[in-house]
Amino acid sequence: MFIVHVQVQVKPEFVEAFRQATIANAQQSVKEPGIARFDLLQPAEAPAHFVLVEVYRTAEGRAQHRETAHYQTWRDTVAEMMAEPRTSVTYTNIFPGDEGW
Amino acid sequence: MFIVHVQVQVKPEFVEAFRQATIANAQQSVKEPGIARFDLLQPAEAPAHFVLVEVYRTAEGRAQHRETAHYQTWRDTVAEMMAEPRTSVTYTNIFPGDEGW
Repeated sequence: MFIVHVQVQVKPEFVEAFRQATIANAQQSVKEPGIARFDLLQPAEAPAHFVLVEVYRTAEGRAQHRETAHYQTWRDTVAEMMAEPRTSVTYTNIFPGDEGW
Repeated sequence: MFIVHVQVQVKPEFVEAFRQATIANAQQSVKEPGIARFDLLQPAEAPAHFVLVEVYRTAEGRAQHRETAHYQTWRDTVAEMMAEPRTSVTYTNIFPGDEGW
C-alpha cells in the first residue's frame, strides 16, 4: 500500500471548520477505488492538530485522488485555515500485507 | 478508538531483526479483543525508521496489551535495537467512527 500521514496544524479559530471540511472530503475519498482508508485523527492533548492517515492501494491512487473535485474543494477550502504548511511522510506497509486493508 | 502512533528509530544493524520481532508481536496483537488494528509501517526513504499504528478499542485495551507475553517479549527483545528512545502520540478518531475499524 502507499500510505501517507499528513500533519496539519490549524489556526485555533478554524478548528471546527477544518474538521467539517475534512470529514466531508474523507466521506467522498473512501468511495474512490484507489483508496482503502482515509482516517482523520486528533491528538488527545492538541485539539488544533490533526493527522490524516491516507491509505492508497498504489501511488497512482494518490494521483487520482488529487484529480477529484472533493480533494480540490478541500484543498482550496482549508488553505487559509492552516497555521503553517502541512507536512507529510509516505510509508509502505510491512504488516499486515495488502490483504489487510 | 484509542489510537497510538509509535515512532521508532532503529540502529542500522538491527533493522531486519526489529522488523521480524515486530511482525511477530503484531501477528499476536491483532488477535487481542481490545485491538482493532496493529500496523507496522516503514517510510519509503528511511529504512531504519518504523511507525507502529496501534488501534485500541479503548484505553483499557492498551493496558491489557501491555500485560501480554508477546508484548513483553517484544519490548525486551527490541530494547537494545533502538537508536534512541521511541516516542508516541495518542489520538482519537474523528473519521470514521468506531464502526469503521
